[in-house]
Amino acid sequence: MLNAAASYLHTSAEIRQLCRESKFTAPTPGLAPGFVQANLVILPDDWAFEFLLFCQRNPKACPILDVTEIGSPEPKLIAPGSDLRTDLPRYKIFRQGQFWEETTDIRAFWHQNLVAFLIGCSFSFENAMIAVGLPVRHIETGKNVPMYKTNINCIPTQRFSGPLVVSMRPLPAHQVVRAVEVTQRYHKAHGSPVHIGDPSAIGIQTLENPDYGDAVPLHPGEVPVFWACGVTTQTAILQAQPEFAITHAPGHMFISDLRDEDLTL
Amino acid sequence: MLNAAASYLHTSAEIRQLCRESKFTAPTPGLAPGFVQANLVILPDDWAFEFLLFCQRNPKACPILDVTEIGSPEPKLIAPGSDLRTDLPRYKIFRQGQFWEETTDIRAFWHQNLVAFLIGCSFSFENAMIAVGLPVRHIETGKNVPMYKTNINCIPTQRFSGPLVVSMRPLPAHQVVRAVEVTQRYHKAHGSPVHIGDPSAIGIQTLENPDYGDAVPLHPGEVPVFWACGVTTQTAILQAQPEFAITHAPGHMFISDLRDEDLTL
Repeated sequence: MLNAAASYLHTSAEIRQLCRESKFTAPTPGLAPGFVQANLVILPDDWAFEFLLFCQRNPKACPILDVTEIGSPEPKLIAPGSDLRTDLPRYKIFRQGQFWEETTDIRAFWHQNLVAFLIGCSFSFENAMIAVGLPVRHIETGKNVPMYKTNINCIPTQRFSGPLVVSMRPLPAHQVVRAVEVTQRYHKAHGSPVHIGDPSAIGIQTLENPDYGDAVPLHPGEVPVFWACGVTTQTAILQAQPEFAITHAPGHMFISDLRDEDLTL
Repeated sequence: MLNAAASYLHTSAEIRQLCRESKFTAPTPGLAPGFVQANLVILPDDWAFEFLLFCQRNPKACPILDVTEIGSPEPKLIAPGSDLRTDLPRYKIFRQGQFWEETTDIRAFWHQNLVAFLIGCSFSFENAMIAVGLPVRHIETGKNVPMYKTNINCIPTQRFSGPLVVSMRPLPAHQVVRAVEVTQRYHKAHGSPVHIGDPSAIGIQTLENPDYGDAVPLHPGEVPVFWACGVTTQTAILQAQPEFAITHAPGHMFISDLRDEDLTL
């Protein structure tokens, strides 16, 4: 079994191999540092065009890194040779938009009509923030990032719609501009913030009760800064209620062969 | 009829209205300056997912600006209220991948299964080059930009594939870096160059015989600089041979309500 100290010795391919052998089933933050981690969404092919269009229309929340050929579980662009049916630590299965079960292997659920979408995640820009000395509160405090539904509507397609979901990181006022500069480069990992300051301006009543993840403390003089979040796709899928869907389990991401810098312009 | 002097008084909506009334059927370069012009591709819905995926995989050549709902001729994101069946000056119709006819109105060809794709074009970054004093040779000489097929293969999908097509602009050696800096901001209008210098390194035997457009002179000390070009999509469509397709006629673009600066990160 992998422990945190050993994880720094592993490449993306090694972590995927451990997942494939069911030797690793835990959350992936901090693993294979420098390699891009990705959100996973799997849908039947008759939903594929519309979901890709939804991502295209909402690129800050849903930056597409790779899309598999119909029926193929191999994301050839970002991890050739990998297998999305086995190479993530944990998955969630949905039927008719309802959660069905969690599993560590989806080979039994795979079908020739499925298409997989890999979507950028905030870990890439958090590494960049840390590299320039910006605080990332949920990492400092050993928590999950706090995430909130907003009153900002995504640009819908016929069947996919829903609120923009954001993640929040508190920053000292004098470092907010630097955080914009650093994260905007990572346009395939949510890029620059979508809002700075007053949570109520985007429909968040209180920071103390996030819709997903954990609350984190704001220190005096700190400003809440909000970035678009990949959970937006899951909300849209729950609303659209496709007959079948698979996603990664929260925090249990796909680790690709891309490097964080590959997500910058 | 619109003349060049008058054109500078027109907005994008006014040009589209003139097209709709068949009062304007000429090429669009220079019209409604500052407004984003776009390539048009229309395909049957069973080709839509794969074409969107092809664009997604080759974003420098095919930066997507808008995709219509199946059956709708209105690009709601970039020109609400417009009608793609009438609002371009000239179209090309293809059947089984073969050119069929050119027309100024496609209402007779429209069908409820069609999806339209609007794709960024180089006019946006050329305006930015001119604004900082960089030469744009084909504009200086009143020609069409020279375009070449390269030996760089696009990332294919199952049915769409083909060579990357590039446009070329000669630049004095000391201004090449500036051209990279200026154009890379316009990531939804082909962005930074794909190649600088030796044409043979990307499979171009001679600059004097472009595959599309006109040859332009290189002055002593100038370096050819190559950008990804939207004609790449047309080559891919000719190879895939869908039963039906419509594109804009070369140079006869759709003029959207976006501003050039909207295409920057």
